[in-house]
Amino acid sequence: MKLQLALDLVDIPQAKKLVGEVQDLIDIVEIGTPFIIREGLKAVREIKQAFPNLELLADLKIMDAGAYEATLAYEAGADIVTVLGAANDITIEKVIEVTIQRHKKVMVDMIAVKNIAGRGRELDRLPISYLSVHTAADRHTQGDNPLAELQQVRQVIKNAGLAVAGGITVETLPQLIPFQPEIVIVGGAITSSPHPRQTALAMRQLIGEKNL
Amino acid sequence: MKLQLALDLVDIPQAKKLVGEVQDLIDIVEIGTPFIIREGLKAVREIKQAFPNLELLADLKIMDAGAYEATLAYEAGADIVTVLGAANDITIEKVIEVTIQRHKKVMVDMIAVKNIAGRGRELDRLPISYLSVHTAADRHTQGDNPLAELQQVRQVIKNAGLAVAGGITVETLPQLIPFQPEIVIVGGAITSSPHPRQTALAMRQLIGEKNL
Repeated sequence: MKLQLALDLVDIPQAKKLVGEVQDLIDIVEIGTPFIIREGLKAVREIKQAFPNLELLADLKIMDAGAYEATLAYEAGADIVTVLGAANDITIEKVIEVTIQRHKKVMVDMIAVKNIAGRGRELDRLPISYLSVHTAADRHTQGDNPLAELQQVRQVIKNAGLAVAGGITVETLPQLIPFQPEIVIVGGAITSSPHPRQTALAMRQLIGEKNL
Repeated sequence: MKLQLALDLVDIPQAKKLVGEVQDLIDIVEIGTPFIIREGLKAVREIKQAFPNLELLADLKIMDAGAYEATLAYEAGADIVTVLGAANDITIEKVIEVTIQRHKKVMVDMIAVKNIAGRGRELDRLPISYLSVHTAADRHTQGDNPLAELQQVRQVIKNAGLAVAGGITVETLPQLIPFQPEIVIVGGAITSSPHPRQTALAMRQLIGEKNL
């Protein structure tokens, strides 16, 4: 199980400082959508350059121009790019094509997909690396979390690795572990923690050692 | 009817040159999604600063963090921001809330929405400025265009202004005009034209004079 740290609300110097503190505890560093909106691919380039040994995910949430946008991210240094499960199939297929050509990985983000089991089953037939069960941040205040959707999707996914995201904390992580996601994505619980390293360490201990 | 020029594949100097050539012919300049991915909000800031008299649309295609991402765009100088029709309702509502507070405009982009008439009818009950019928660029090679969807949506939309986008050219524009969209969005037909001003002028003549 891998731990992915999502960076959304930080700037580039804050990101470097934070990743520097936890780099031995995480597997993947995510340049989040709002971070890319603010800084552009410069954020991807600079964080990959500073931490070449970590995998880097560019959370583009691609909805169109699949080949072009995925290529931009890969050329900037991303190892993984996200495309929306809500996108047209042709867009997802174009991202996959570029991803395979470049020996990279693609994560399909199921955020806001209504029929998550049905759409998940469809997408699982494609050569995608990861399918991400993702409760939108805007739904956290309504008390929603990814557990129910993870249960549904777990039953239908046979090929893709599962990722899970959406307000995960040290307290809620233990409920998710029995479903054996390949990637656990954590943002605010670490980035807004008064002690980011301690929080990351607690999560690492729950999900098991790195590279195991 | 307004003419919106979508800038996707250009860099900031190219964008300034291009907009400079056609600024009297267009109403809205769009900083397209790939442009924002490459440059971040710097593109919004610089283009708005260079052309303060044009409305500026930031094509963020918001899927989550509605209030935060819309605020970023508005603070950078955007007059209009896009949110996906495929997003959760709560995200669209949060974008609307920030938009109203700041006296800005929101466009809901119906790209990749399957039941476009049903979802359009739902969204038309919300105080959105524009609903955009948008054929993904990835579908153009399949011969798809926005005409059929514009026909469907036109019948159900009573409140929002309609926008239309997706590979529109001087040749296909006349078919769209009878449906009276408030905004016609054109990208490549102008930006990749050997004579951008001539193409923009031909389109302007088809849709009628500016500010009329």
